[in-house]
Formats: sequence, structure tokens, C-alpha cells
Amino acid sequence: MSLFFRRTMASAASLKQASKVVCVGRNYGDHIKELNNARPRQPFFFLKPPSSILLPGAGPVLRPKGVDMHFEIELAAIIGKQVRNLDPNDEKGALDAIKGYAMAIDLTARNVQNEAKKKGLPWDIAKGFDTFLPMSDFIPKNAIANPHDVEVFLKVNGETKQDASTNLMLFQIPRLFSDISRVMTLEEGDIVLTGTPAGVGPAVPGDTISAGIRVGGKELPEGRIELV
Amino acid sequence: MSLFFRRTMASAASLKQASKVVCVGRNYGDHIKELNNARPRQPFFFLKPPSSILLPGAGPVLRPKGVDMHFEIELAAIIGKQVRNLDPNDEKGALDAIKGYAMAIDLTARNVQNEAKKKGLPWDIAKGFDTFLPMSDFIPKNAIANPHDVEVFLKVNGETKQDASTNLMLFQIPRLFSDISRVMTLEEGDIVLTGTPAGVGPAVPGDTISAGIRVGGKELPEGRIELV
Ligand SMILES: [Mg+2]
Ligand SMILES: [Mg+2]
Ligand SMILES: [Mg+2]
Repeated sequence: MSLFFRRTMASAASLKQASKVVCVGRNYGDHIKELNNARPRQPFFFLKPPSSILLPGAGPVLRPKGVDMHFEIELAAIIGKQVRNLDPNDEKGALDAIKGYAMAIDLTARNVQNEAKKKGLPWDIAKGFDTFLPMSDFIPKNAIANPHDVEVFLKVNGETKQDASTNLMLFQIPRLFSDISRVMTLEEGDIVLTGTPAGVGPAVPGDTISAGIRVGGKELPEGRIELV
Repeated sequence: MSLFFRRTMASAASLKQASKVVCVGRNYGDHIKELNNARPRQPFFFLKPPSSILLPGAGPVLRPKGVDMHFEIELAAIIGKQVRNLDPNDEKGALDAIKGYAMAIDLTARNVQNEAKKKGLPWDIAKGFDTFLPMSDFIPKNAIANPHDVEVFLKVNGETKQDASTNLMLFQIPRLFSDISRVMTLEEGDIVLTGTPAGVGPAVPGDTISAGIRVGGKELPEGRIELV
């Protein structure tokens, strides 16, 4: 039991060694509508600092004063080897470059982000606070046969807020890796968040958040995130 | 000679191990004016991915097609120990947290950035292309007695484009570290770019860029950047 626990912790801890975390925006049509955003003609993305990663059991989310904090559940792909200038049609190349997955909550200071958008300023502060990237344990690659056919969900106080299939992604992983890797080389250990479906909303002090992933209707225990 | 060379390469290479690169925007009044930007009431900052770092001797800058690439010379502080929630008046704490410096060119896809600003989108693509962060060798801390009293410069084809004292920073390093570390913990090895003075402009294929730093009127050899 304790050996198992140590192994789990070790692989989760390695997530924090990522040289970067790349997050895709507006990748589910229904989420774009709910935020009144424009549908992108191509994927866009931004960075979260590895210092924002909150590993399982590493403590509570710290919501800074005055921040309207929103949750966004996302499937994260963990990069297993360098990816540069990937062809968008190279599905095999994209999936071969993945060494595993994790679930991730792209916590966002929505009021800070809205202000930044209005002023044309960067999103990195709104997205980058310490603890603003709770992650699950590492999910072995073989637990997810097809990353475009799993369900991701998030509940607040037991009530389902987000629950959608990843087959609703506007741009699938090969296209995402292609667009990202034509700008910035993806390195082993890097983390790519693939966007959030509809249902994002605020979490306030006292809320409990639980999130996870189902494959073929069955939840993967490694994909659990519990925040109290 | 070869030992010296190896040591230099090793410390420059360690720059690329940074867990994040934090860049301060609009930190010199004259540069704010030249870009018609608003003067910030507080420092703001964004991230560049470590994959964008171009070490000395590691090859040319790669300018993607269709990109209007601008140079911004900046003094970079290299973090020596964890900084979290620093008091803005804790000058000693800020300087104690620095293990050394480097010169850095915050290359920017200005057309991509302008488009992002207009649409309220993140800056990370405009700032994050591979090779868009040429850096000098590591500058030992004791070579710079006062980081707010050095001169940074950049020449294109031998013509001076930027040349200014860091005493023109709107927000000095303790305030920068304070504002950054209240959002994101700075870790050992992290790199903080302190903003660029006036004179930014485009670099086109065939241009040679040289940049560096003077202390007491004398150039520091470790701070040299040469791009052809
Ligand atoms: Mg998101
Ligand atoms: Mg690292
Ligand atoms: Mg800059």
C-alpha cells in the first residue's frame, strides 16, 4: 500500500517538472457560446506557469482576495517526446508523442481576465496564480484508447456543472499539437490542456469541487480531482 | 581556454532549465510613449516559454513567415532562491534572491501581438516562438553592484537603436518581484525580464544584431549577444 502510494505521488510530482504548460482556448462550441466569444478559425493557446500546478493532496486552492475564480475542467495530454512542426494530419505522430494523460482544472480569475481582454493585456496573471492548476494523478496512456472519446466532468458541492465528451472538441489533438509545435517546440514532460466544455462557473470559499474522467462509462480512479 | 569555454557554456545552458520566464511589460516611460500604450499603474507581466530561449552560439533566430519581428533589449535577473509574497519594500530580500543576471532580447511578433491585443487574446503566441528569446551568458552577480545603474544597449547593423540606463525603470526590481511573487512563486533558476527602454523596432533577414550591458561605462563580456 505504501509502495503504491509512493509510486502514485512520484508520477504526479513529475507533472510539476514540466518545462511548460500550454492551454488551448475556446475548443468546445458550447463553451464559446456561453462566454459570448468568437469561434476561432484556428486553435489559440496560452501558458500557465508550472508554479500554478496543485498536485493531489498538496493542499487547498488559494483564491486571492477580490478574484472571481472560475473552474474549467480539461483533459491534459502529457508529452513523451519532443514535438516540432508536426503535420496536422499526422495523427499517429501526435498520439505517439503522448506518454499519458491527467485531468486538470484551468482555474481562471475571470474578472482579471475580462479586464485584461478589455485592455488588450496578457492573460498570464489571470491564469497563473499559485494553485490555479489542480491536477489529478498521472493517467497511464493505455487507460485511454481514444482521447477523443472520453467524458470529462466537474461537480460543485455534488452538483454536476460540466459533463461532456471530448468528441466535441473543435480541434482534435493532432491539429492542436501541430499548431502549438509550429510556434513552440513541445518537450518531454510538457503538459497540454485541450480546452473546456460548457458549464464553467465560479467557485467560492466553502465549495467542494470534484472532477474526473470516464472511459466507456467507467470512471478512471487516477483522473480524480477532489478539492475542499 | 577549453575549460573556460565549457564552464561558460554550462552556465548559459542552465538558463534553459528555468521553470518559467516572466517578462515585465511597459517598464520604461519612453518605450510606453513610442508604442502609444497606457502607462500602467502597477507592473504587469507575461510568460515566455523556456523553449523560446536561444543560448549563445546555438544558431540563428528563426523568423516565421509573415511575422513582423521586433527586438526589445532587457536586463534579466536569474532567481537564486524561492520568492513568494515578497514585500515591495524588501529591497534586501529582492536582491538576495538574485543569483546573477543575463542580457535578453524579448523578440516579439509585433503584428501577431497587435492582432491579439485588438481581439483581447493572449500574447503567448506573439512572444513564444522558438528562438524568440536570445540570451547572453550568465553574468555573475558580483559583476553588477546595482542593477538599477547599468546601461543596456542594442545595435542593428552597427547602428545604436536602444541605449538606456536601467535607472529609468518605472518599477524597480523589488517592486517587480513583489508583484510577480504575489501571483506566482518564483523558483530557483527562474528568469525575470525587467522591461525594455525606447528604441524597439523591426529586424529583418540579413540584419546583424548586437547587444550588451555596460557597468560604469565598461562593457561586461558575459552580457554580449551577437546575432547574425
Ligand atoms: Mg481553459
Ligand atoms: Mg524544469
Ligand atoms: Mg519586453
